[in-house]
Amino acid sequence: MVSPVASTSRTRINREPQRAVYDRETAYQILDEGFICHVGFSVDGQPYVIPTSYGRAGGNLYLHGSVASRMLRTIKEGVPVCVTVTLLDGLVLARSVFNHSMNYRSVVLLGIATAVENSAEKLEALRALSEHIVPGRWAEARQPNERELKATLVMRVPIMEFSAKVRTGPPIDDEEDYSFPTWAGVIPLEMVAQTPVPDPKLDESAAVPSYVRKYSRRKG
Amino acid sequence: MVSPVASTSRTRINREPQRAVYDRETAYQILDEGFICHVGFSVDGQPYVIPTSYGRAGGNLYLHGSVASRMLRTIKEGVPVCVTVTLLDGLVLARSVFNHSMNYRSVVLLGIATAVENSAEKLEALRALSEHIVPGRWAEARQPNERELKATLVMRVPIMEFSAKVRTGPPIDDEEDYSFPTWAGVIPLEMVAQTPVPDPKLDESAAVPSYVRKYSRRKG
Repeated sequence: MVSPVASTSRTRINREPQRAVYDRETAYQILDEGFICHVGFSVDGQPYVIPTSYGRAGGNLYLHGSVASRMLRTIKEGVPVCVTVTLLDGLVLARSVFNHSMNYRSVVLLGIATAVENSAEKLEALRALSEHIVPGRWAEARQPNERELKATLVMRVPIMEFSAKVRTGPPIDDEEDYSFPTWAGVIPLEMVAQTPVPDPKLDESAAVPSYVRKYSRRKG
Repeated sequence: MVSPVASTSRTRINREPQRAVYDRETAYQILDEGFICHVGFSVDGQPYVIPTSYGRAGGNLYLHGSVASRMLRTIKEGVPVCVTVTLLDGLVLARSVFNHSMNYRSVVLLGIATAVENSAEKLEALRALSEHIVPGRWAEARQPNERELKATLVMRVPIMEFSAKVRTGPPIDDEEDYSFPTWAGVIPLEMVAQTPVPDPKLDESAAVPSYVRKYSRRKG
């Protein structure tokens, strides 16, 4: 299968082009570590940016929510959307204020979202979404019933037109600033799972499953 | 001073209205804990969502970047923008797949961005931005010079038309699901600073300042 070209004039990165990556594998790694995206769409010329969870299965990104959601109802009309995923890795402290930066990985995906209508595909997309966010959870939870499936809208965004941007490593200062007497380096940041908090309505003897105890977004 | 009304028909929250908060103080707390926003703007009908850092000073939110940045050049034209800040607090595991959720706090701000042209105000905005992200750093870094100030665009977005949404607490299951035999509760998530990594070009004897060692987004 011929892989579609990821970069177009709309997704080409002009600023800091050395940070641009267009390969699908890097984009997938970023999409798979994250699970919150920011969806952009316009209503009457006003852009809106709404945070929501997502899942990836193959070359598709899935969004879901209530059939009453304004965001989902809007993008269901076939308007152009932008889905952005950002992972923050660190604060980069340079000697000069000007060269301060951040280490991050991000994907910007442009496209049109399509509602998943077929119920088997819808259930499969919801499973993919659930497993993307908390692997192992789907099989242990009470499965969706017909009423719940009807109340849920699942949207598919093909991962076709995208770009990714990555910055890593230490600060880059101007040559003459390296002697400036201040600390310089990186404060790494990580989204870390803390001790699970059982539902107060849960039987106290209930064991915490390993997919909860060992929850982490780090892959491999 | 009369505080402007924050909520309009464009920012009123229809879904899960019990999660909606419109007071300025809550929005400021969210904006002050975060420092990455997602900025939405449209070009030729295509929305773009770009992650960037921000700072808050009083009733204004400040963005900055290179004068060559497409995002900044676009929003400088006075087009409507949306700035969204999302803090993720936890994964909410309910008994049913359907009632899974997330704990989060988010602010959605609509408005028009204006370039800060006055150099004293520009420097002050950059200081606010820097202190918002790493309090204590500004005074210890090499200050911006004329060339750097000219190469930097600072945009001001007044915090006028906004809404905030907050979910906290345990899962809410349907009554009949509470007996379903699975673990339920919250996996708290937190953005945590890890051990600072000094620039390899830094003198090894350089002490790590306390604002780096004790870096945390938690307030108070």
